[in-house]
Amino acid sequence: MPKTQWKPGTMVYPVPAVMVTCGNKPENYNIITIAWTGTINSDPPMCYISVRKSRHSHKLIKDTGEFVINLTTKELAKATDWCGVKSGKNVDKFKEMNLTPVKASIVSAPMIKESPINIECKVTEVKELGTHDMFLAEVVAVHADNKYIDPKTDSFNLSKAMPIAYSHGHYYELGTRIGKFGWSVMKNKTKRKNKKH
Amino acid sequence: MPKTQWKPGTMVYPVPAVMVTCGNKPENYNIITIAWTGTINSDPPMCYISVRKSRHSHKLIKDTGEFVINLTTKELAKATDWCGVKSGKNVDKFKEMNLTPVKASIVSAPMIKESPINIECKVTEVKELGTHDMFLAEVVAVHADNKYIDPKTDSFNLSKAMPIAYSHGHYYELGTRIGKFGWSVMKNKTKRKNKKH
Repeated sequence: MPKTQWKPGTMVYPVPAVMVTCGNKPENYNIITIAWTGTINSDPPMCYISVRKSRHSHKLIKDTGEFVINLTTKELAKATDWCGVKSGKNVDKFKEMNLTPVKASIVSAPMIKESPINIECKVTEVKELGTHDMFLAEVVAVHADNKYIDPKTDSFNLSKAMPIAYSHGHYYELGTRIGKFGWSVMKNKTKRKNKKH
Repeated sequence: MPKTQWKPGTMVYPVPAVMVTCGNKPENYNIITIAWTGTINSDPPMCYISVRKSRHSHKLIKDTGEFVINLTTKELAKATDWCGVKSGKNVDKFKEMNLTPVKASIVSAPMIKESPINIECKVTEVKELGTHDMFLAEVVAVHADNKYIDPKTDSFNLSKAMPIAYSHGHYYELGTRIGKFGWSVMKNKTKRKNKKH
């Protein structure tokens, strides 16, 4: 097989690049960008973030047991990258990036107003895995920007917000839509139907 | 704030849409498409997949403690969707989708030849979370398709393989590249340099 074997590495891509907010009062509000995140359970809805122990946000999340996942967009791309490189020990990331902290409904961590989706999370378990601690969490509330909700159908169109993904060291916009979940089967059904006629 | 609060849900997007291969002999080789996946630790490299208990692959992975994550591409999009909808109880997914199982180097599960990256994984823990069981795993080997390796620089260009992402019910190609990790700071450095001159 024309393949090259590498030593073990982190190669699951593309992944999200989310801004995670934490802290429990305006004085310690912080933002950290996280690519090691995802959904781990559908019902109850659960997700995770993995955070290096050395990060300023690590202690805030461990102490409060709460955080918010804020989805990112093309417009937020610079802030997304910046908040992943800088430390909240030295700067007020909200201020520096012109982002607006707003009170969440359940958790004490703030939400980023400019993000199209805010996911309030309560930590259920912390797993020490090596370089990173994995925070498993239950989703306790979700907030969606009305800008992307069709007032007629009430459906939310995330793609209109131009979400970004992180893949092998680079941020990307999403491109052409290929299909809906299940399209490969729907296509087959149409084919079969056509054959009958 | 012009936002609508929803009940808790799974809204972390975009996420990967990978084909996970499992089984330990050609007769029981299977493929399941998974979007609830990601990296959970950098060193040692670890990842996870969350699988519904009812899925045919769930028992195979639980019994063998091994699986392979195969990254997907625009060319593999139809197979990716199809392997997420169909059950391996009734069909040979490799055969039906014209995919080629090849022996992995360490685990007993096969790899998909047509995938640009194959990640061999050994389960370290199974967490029952509700609808899904989360398989935490250590990456034990990675295989990269030589087609995407520049023979001069030896660097691997995943974007050339046209990876796909899954976002809120739809599959997407990756679009325009926005920047490299750290670009927001590099940009600032350039600006500062320009100011000096």
